[in-house]
Amino acid sequence: MTRFAFTLEFDGTPFMGLQRQAHGPSVQQAVEEAIQRVTGEQAIMFAAGRTDAGVHALFMRAHVDIQKDIAPFRLMEAMNYHLRPNPIAVLDCRMVADDWHARFSCVGRSYIYRIVNRRAPLTIGLHHAWQVNKPLDAEAMHEAAQALVGHHDFTTFRSVHCQSASALKTLDSLSVRRQGDQVIIETAARSYLHHQVRSMVGALSVVGLGRWSVERVREALEARDRQALPVNAPPDGLFFNRAVYPGE
Amino acid sequence: MTRFAFTLEFDGTPFMGLQRQAHGPSVQQAVEEAIQRVTGEQAIMFAAGRTDAGVHALFMRAHVDIQKDIAPFRLMEAMNYHLRPNPIAVLDCRMVADDWHARFSCVGRSYIYRIVNRRAPLTIGLHHAWQVNKPLDAEAMHEAAQALVGHHDFTTFRSVHCQSASALKTLDSLSVRRQGDQVIIETAARSYLHHQVRSMVGALSVVGLGRWSVERVREALEARDRQALPVNAPPDGLFFNRAVYPGE
Repeated sequence: MTRFAFTLEFDGTPFMGLQRQAHGPSVQQAVEEAIQRVTGEQAIMFAAGRTDAGVHALFMRAHVDIQKDIAPFRLMEAMNYHLRPNPIAVLDCRMVADDWHARFSCVGRSYIYRIVNRRAPLTIGLHHAWQVNKPLDAEAMHEAAQALVGHHDFTTFRSVHCQSASALKTLDSLSVRRQGDQVIIETAARSYLHHQVRSMVGALSVVGLGRWSVERVREALEARDRQALPVNAPPDGLFFNRAVYPGE
Repeated sequence: MTRFAFTLEFDGTPFMGLQRQAHGPSVQQAVEEAIQRVTGEQAIMFAAGRTDAGVHALFMRAHVDIQKDIAPFRLMEAMNYHLRPNPIAVLDCRMVADDWHARFSCVGRSYIYRIVNRRAPLTIGLHHAWQVNKPLDAEAMHEAAQALVGHHDFTTFRSVHCQSASALKTLDSLSVRRQGDQVIIETAARSYLHHQVRSMVGALSVVGLGRWSVERVREALEARDRQALPVNAPPDGLFFNRAVYPGE
């Protein structure tokens, strides 16, 4: 048995999410089926993050255990061949120690959220950004974001379906910057609650629109109440960016 | 009659090209039909460039003449409404003088060509880049590109279907730079021959692969023979960027 770690890029649009779902296509199912075609084995994929339906990934890390004797490069090439026409690509594949775990060894996860801030509908970026019609004040959003950085109870920013035992999380960074007609939000943390990034982006968006003060975000956090959240940002603009592992 | 100039962004993937075609959807047809739904008029659109099937636009300029009394902002909003679900957006709309012509007043056109240089297939960027499997030397490509800058007979870099009376064109700039796993090619000129940008990118790609020397590009140019062109780059990676007008 050899453990292979790989880096996945995928367009989340056609998938019900990264994890295998009973009713609909998932990234996990597509990857596991590709591995089965290559090796004849029913491997189980573990990934650094469990992205929702419609959420994308730039550098998702994952691992599988395989019995067959195969070189990482050949495995990667064969997986990419069999993954077609799914919009999933294996960017990198290497052998790792048997105790390396894509999910449990991961000590940091970063996301990028992309807003296109204009009246015109999306064309080339369709499904890969959240289009916000009215002007956003990115500086005010950045200021408000700083209220969320640190160790907090994020109940307000958590899906009612979140299965995490505790709502206590430490947010390492949350930044907002304007880049032409785009507003780019980046965040880093060891881990997140279900829907946490999209919930934070939702709250920041109403600050950007001038409907909420910076202080109001702090109050929403302190309320520890999902009802205090004004809006959940759509999945289209969310990209899992990088996973961090000790010694890498 | 009022002449309206507008800026179009579009994803060229589902279109046979910008210009109206007898057999298949075009950007021109979609825009003219949207204008008819707004105004009831059969206006004719003129655009700065005539992009091919599958070629995209970031800031294409165009104009139409309209009888109906309508404010530019309302026209833009109504066009964007009626253009759905076509991947075409009106980014800007303004009134211009009756002698302003999107095509004939245009004194400069720039294009961007995007190569993703990696073995893994495209996912998020599918249809919006040319994937080249083998490593490209972007510096050698940039050096070779300089042989094409200036006033030349571009017969080698011209489609056999090109209708231009002369193959003499002045290329103002052609640059190549690496940006992570992408190779970005940018070009500016007053005008181009049919397939000129894709033909130039094709020639530069074989330099990048090490199959052609820099000198070989100069020889291909001097051959003034379409047979001297090694490959035409696919439309997917090509984006019409900006059109330049006097006084803007």
